[in-house]
Amino acid sequence: MPEHTGPVPRAHLVTGVEEFIAEHVLPVDDEHDGDVEAAGGESLRIRLQAGARERGLLSPHGPTDLGGLGLGMVDRVPVFEAAGRSLFGAMALNINAPDEGNIHLLDHVATAVQREQYLRPLVRGEVRSAFAMTEPAPGAGSDPSLLTTTATRVSGGWSINGRKWFITGADGAGFFIVMARTSGEPGEAGGATMLLAPADRDGIRVVRHIGTMDRSMLGGHCEVTFTDVFVPDADVLGAVDEGFRYAQVRLGPARMTHVMRWTGAAQRAHDVAIEHVAARRAFDGRLADLGMVQQQIADSEIDLAATRALLLEACRELDEGGRASGSTSITKTFAAEALNRVVDRAVQLCGALGVSDELPVARIARELRPFRIYDGPSEVHRWAIARRAVRRGAGS
Amino acid sequence: MPEHTGPVPRAHLVTGVEEFIAEHVLPVDDEHDGDVEAAGGESLRIRLQAGARERGLLSPHGPTDLGGLGLGMVDRVPVFEAAGRSLFGAMALNINAPDEGNIHLLDHVATAVQREQYLRPLVRGEVRSAFAMTEPAPGAGSDPSLLTTTATRVSGGWSINGRKWFITGADGAGFFIVMARTSGEPGEAGGATMLLAPADRDGIRVVRHIGTMDRSMLGGHCEVTFTDVFVPDADVLGAVDEGFRYAQVRLGPARMTHVMRWTGAAQRAHDVAIEHVAARRAFDGRLADLGMVQQQIADSEIDLAATRALLLEACRELDEGGRASGSTSITKTFAAEALNRVVDRAVQLCGALGVSDELPVARIARELRPFRIYDGPSEVHRWAIARRAVRRGAGS
Amino acid sequence: MPEHTGPVPRAHLVTGVEEFIAEHVLPVDDEHDGDVEAAGGESLRIRLQAGARERGLLSPHGPTDLGGLGLGMVDRVPVFEAAGRSLFGAMALNINAPDEGNIHLLDHVATAVQREQYLRPLVRGEVRSAFAMTEPAPGAGSDPSLLTTTATRVSGGWSINGRKWFITGADGAGFFIVMARTSGEPGEAGGATMLLAPADRDGIRVVRHIGTMDRSMLGGHCEVTFTDVFVPDADVLGAVDEGFRYAQVRLGPARMTHVMRWTGAAQRAHDVAIEHVAARRAFDGRLADLGMVQQQIADSEIDLAATRALLLEACRELDEGGRASGSTSITKTFAAEALNRVVDRAVQLCGALGVSDELPVARIARELRPFRIYDGPSEVHRWAIARRAVRRGAGS
Amino acid sequence: MPEHTGPVPRAHLVTGVEEFIAEHVLPVDDEHDGDVEAAGGESLRIRLQAGARERGLLSPHGPTDLGGLGLGMVDRVPVFEAAGRSLFGAMALNINAPDEGNIHLLDHVATAVQREQYLRPLVRGEVRSAFAMTEPAPGAGSDPSLLTTTATRVSGGWSINGRKWFITGADGAGFFIVMARTSGEPGEAGGATMLLAPADRDGIRVVRHIGTMDRSMLGGHCEVTFTDVFVPDADVLGAVDEGFRYAQVRLGPARMTHVMRWTGAAQRAHDVAIEHVAARRAFDGRLADLGMVQQQIADSEIDLAATRALLLEACRELDEGGRASGSTSITKTFAAEALNRVVDRAVQLCGALGVSDELPVARIARELRPFRIYDGPSEVHRWAIARRAVRRGAGS
Repeated sequence: MPEHTGPVPRAHLVTGVEEFIAEHVLPVDDEHDGDVEAAGGESLRIRLQAGARERGLLSPHGPTDLGGLGLGMVDRVPVFEAAGRSLFGAMALNINAPDEGNIHLLDHVATAVQREQYLRPLVRGEVRSAFAMTEPAPGAGSDPSLLTTTATRVSGGWSINGRKWFITGADGAGFFIVMARTSGEPGEAGGATMLLAPADRDGIRVVRHIGTMDRSMLGGHCEVTFTDVFVPDADVLGAVDEGFRYAQVRLGPARMTHVMRWTGAAQRAHDVAIEHVAARRAFDGRLADLGMVQQQIADSEIDLAATRALLLEACRELDEGGRASGSTSITKTFAAEALNRVVDRAVQLCGALGVSDELPVARIARELRPFRIYDGPSEVHRWAIARRAVRRGAGS
Repeated sequence: MPEHTGPVPRAHLVTGVEEFIAEHVLPVDDEHDGDVEAAGGESLRIRLQAGARERGLLSPHGPTDLGGLGLGMVDRVPVFEAAGRSLFGAMALNINAPDEGNIHLLDHVATAVQREQYLRPLVRGEVRSAFAMTEPAPGAGSDPSLLTTTATRVSGGWSINGRKWFITGADGAGFFIVMARTSGEPGEAGGATMLLAPADRDGIRVVRHIGTMDRSMLGGHCEVTFTDVFVPDADVLGAVDEGFRYAQVRLGPARMTHVMRWTGAAQRAHDVAIEHVAARRAFDGRLADLGMVQQQIADSEIDLAATRALLLEACRELDEGGRASGSTSITKTFAAEALNRVVDRAVQLCGALGVSDELPVARIARELRPFRIYDGPSEVHRWAIARRAVRRGAGS
Repeated sequence: MPEHTGPVPRAHLVTGVEEFIAEHVLPVDDEHDGDVEAAGGESLRIRLQAGARERGLLSPHGPTDLGGLGLGMVDRVPVFEAAGRSLFGAMALNINAPDEGNIHLLDHVATAVQREQYLRPLVRGEVRSAFAMTEPAPGAGSDPSLLTTTATRVSGGWSINGRKWFITGADGAGFFIVMARTSGEPGEAGGATMLLAPADRDGIRVVRHIGTMDRSMLGGHCEVTFTDVFVPDADVLGAVDEGFRYAQVRLGPARMTHVMRWTGAAQRAHDVAIEHVAARRAFDGRLADLGMVQQQIADSEIDLAATRALLLEACRELDEGGRASGSTSITKTFAAEALNRVVDRAVQLCGALGVSDELPVARIARELRPFRIYDGPSEVHRWAIARRAVRRGAGS
Repeated sequence: MPEHTGPVPRAHLVTGVEEFIAEHVLPVDDEHDGDVEAAGGESLRIRLQAGARERGLLSPHGPTDLGGLGLGMVDRVPVFEAAGRSLFGAMALNINAPDEGNIHLLDHVATAVQREQYLRPLVRGEVRSAFAMTEPAPGAGSDPSLLTTTATRVSGGWSINGRKWFITGADGAGFFIVMARTSGEPGEAGGATMLLAPADRDGIRVVRHIGTMDRSMLGGHCEVTFTDVFVPDADVLGAVDEGFRYAQVRLGPARMTHVMRWTGAAQRAHDVAIEHVAARRAFDGRLADLGMVQQQIADSEIDLAATRALLLEACRELDEGGRASGSTSITKTFAAEALNRVVDRAVQLCGALGVSDELPVARIARELRPFRIYDGPSEVHRWAIARRAVRRGAGS
């Protein structure tokens, strides 16, 4: 497999990604209506990532010592957005959830050995990974403190037992980062630990794919059981009982890269809709010249601009070393809703074609809807945003 | 095939439909995620309609002399809504679009012979039908005056040529009502005629199913070509060149029955969401006791109540013989948006389950979205509503 | 003072009110920008009510044995709406809050003696009244159970002590209906009693007018103190400790008549805006022909239609003897928000004139805004609506 | 008049403004419910500006050679926002509309002589100014091309005739910048010229104040007639027939400083509401802990954050020399609507107090509403935004 010959200059990176996506990724996406399994699944990933690697576009966010391009958060914005125009674009560049966030997390927390064993192949696109946190009721969902999966002390390590679901990318993942309770009771704020486990470790079973409206995530959203899964001490990620704290490390940037990718998808839907109304005539003129059409276009322009402005502010804060809990929460909430509005308007503007698979807008709508729930439903974010504001107000 | 033994008393009709849907139709719907082809397609229809016929519930809106129950518009409201709880419910009762609207249209316009040949078997559920009006650009879409399909005079009748698409139920339909231009040019307001044509008539070809986000309509949304299709004079529906006027006859009631059915579907999604939040605990209490959850529930209660109130007002107007263009347009526009909001909230309230096929809400969202476009996009309705208001204001 | 010569036929009542308002009331309203004190205050009321009395239009909702027209809820709708076109219209017809609701309450609960002493002059427009319930924090506001004003047993009656505010119409009222706690503690659900007290009774003091954005309510929104105010047993309204229950009797209908009046005001703003955009030209055409203008007009048409449809449903339920807690709560909440949207759009459509006193729209916006708070803020209604829905869902 | 002793360091400027506003300006604002005339009018301005001057806070945006602090757009953001917390704050710092925009315009276009005669005293707060562009129908309103006021060639200069209205600050202004047509016809895109005229020039008459919902702008919104007003050639501002182009120079920055000021006002309303709900108890807890309250707080936090993020992006573009027509249009439109939402929620959260003059929120709502119309109604901005997007889409 040929390695790329050197780093792509920053100035050319965005253009490079745009061209790669337009020429090599979007056509596959369009042909298969964004269904990643229908389009080839794992073999598609390998093929597309080979193309990205060849062009020096793979893992733009990965640490440079492991072969990534080392982009900071602000620099990621246009690159990830360009990738996001295709539902397969993030996979092609190895910046898909959950791998992208896992790379970020491991880069911050992994030991040198873990770094070699788990992070390096991930950055190089040799394996995929999964982040096993959410559980069926009454376990950890929107409220992570309800964590019920346990890791109990055994000789030389820990033994994990529990049931997880909506584990994205689990089917075919090379390893799992498992969030398990090492102390305390469900409902208590602390006591969680992150543990690394290769997927072929005894006791790990991908039970089934949960059918969801989105179909573009390789490896699906799975239910996974952990039965007496042994994890040696060396594979504990970070300190015991500090899992929730590390989840926060992962959280802010992961929220923002989601926004970047979905901004690209929404922008594509918007562009398609504009092209449609500019070409289509009715009621004695172009659809694009009707005021109600213009209003929807303008509203989407505003939503996209506000999403990007918030995104840049939050990324600046992250690049400056801040945790940016407040700004990433605000940005994620606004963006998830704004981008869904953008795509919904695109559907509407395209009329009957907008609900068909003749155009990509219905597909983008289907893929984007869960973003208002995944990564924290808007309601949970608003709850946190409000409490922060009230604390600040009471303190002033 | 056993006929039912007598009319069901009005008071029992709603209950009867509710029970039939809950026991015999919803389970099939749930098992197949609302995909009508996967659930059996035409054979499913025959089986479910047999059940409805046996219980005296078939064709509640059909004329009584042909075996229907003869319900007026106001009386249809609770019955159609009860049917709409299942995505297959309208099909089961033979009140699905487009058959339901076609029955209404034929009942008003058909000759005695047409009534026997086309309407009777339709009311009895022996055949399905399609209404072939919409065309690909630059033909008739939101703007029906752009009609390009032609019917030209030939000896003893007419010859139809043209291409239609988004023709619901076309695949497997027993006959078509075709809207074709018999005079004038595309862009002119008049000159359209309705013609009846059995589906096996030479020159009619169902080219393909157009893939759409909804999957519950038997016979799909098809592209259909008409090539030198002969229609004898006896099969012209109503008067030549009066097609747009008859379309109006069909329009108002068809809009309202759509609203009835979708209200049932949205109510089901709402009920499922309430059940979910009443059962699920997080953040030290029931989800149902959280203010942001309550707000969404209340907003949906309001949207459902306003939809039904508008619906009843418009149906009263129709039952009194009015054309109700204004009130049905307002009701359709409000309802399409309100019911979509209701279902979107239901998705949100159910969290990750809401975007999965574990619950019916994602499916209902998928099926309902096109209603803001089908039967006149909201924008076209708003345009008509505003112009009517300005005319009225200028005249006062 | 001439009495009218006989009841106005129902069919002519609405027209009669429309003409009276247009010719005699609106001009005063317009001249004084809806400021009731600037327009003459109490003397204006007496003059306008004399006009209404002369035309047989006074107290259309009052019991007929006391000189009212005895309209039920459904029949009130068009009459109250016609009155509501002017901010002084309800006062002119003696159907203003709080008198209108007090008439309803007294008609249901008053003894024969109370009926003569308090209700008859009220129906005849000889006095005004006030309903003294809301208190400054930490007393009864959105949460009436916090009631702190007390009525304690004294020889032959009760002694009231407490402070009330936002008591509409207090300044100049002939008598008060005072809600006071006769048992229990603030925070407890029961224990309130209604007591009647002439305004000149010792110990009642109207402390001040609270400045509010609305200026059309005669007698203002006042702070009132009650210091050892004696109320004889004969002036207890209904049974002791049953005050909250009677408040419910008053509540549903009062909510609906508010909606009727404000629908009239919003409709006027809408009409003015339509007239404006139909007359004004820019960008090569009438404003009324621009799509973004049409969208706003259509949205307001929809909001008005849905408000009226909900209103009629709720009024039918009330006329049939139902408490209609659910439907009046839904209707009030929807209407308060919808009518504010209508008026906000009217402001926007009129451009700079819309925020000026050259047109009545800014004034109507100012008067209408509090309706989303008065009579139960939308949030409290939504809370009640949601809890009712969850209870119903859990029970099904 | 004491000059300040030296420039305030940037780092201290925001704090300095915050303290000055809190201690010296807000109390006056609160006492007089934001009514500038009631609070002292011109004498208030002189007194407050003296305080600002003393503290080195006057004219933070003015050119340094004329005594201003020379802040660029990005640097203005926190300063203007801090001023905007009081409705009199911008006046106190001499950054009120229209003076602030006029300073910007003159700094870019004025000749050296004009700079001394008109700009210097304006920067120093010695006079106020007005920008006379908008006209009654059928003249220049949202559509500036309809300009009807003319300046015709006379010996040594020009003679202005026409009627203007909604001229902010006209009453008491020291001079006017008049937009008049020097060529072409109403409806044509070019042909406008800007002319400078001292207010005491023969033929200028401030006819009346137009009553508007806002009351905090010194000098009101006036109707002004120009009758044979002579302007010597030396007082033409910039080139003849280039007036619309200069208006664009003024426009972008003026839009953004409006947003800055109103963000301060909206933030104050938000802060007041948070303080209210944090202090007030009902339904067994703090209002601040109710989910529907938290939702409103969170939505306002999001609206404020997005406003500031858009504002900063647009200001960066302006500071880099861009015209930023697109981004300032988007920012103005979003901000005007978002800030109005913020204040409307603040009103709602404060309950009955929110519509009273006990708290500043109703007043801020009243002052802020016109911002959705002034400086281009949202509809006109959306029209421009959409056309730009369609052109861009068609070109790609």
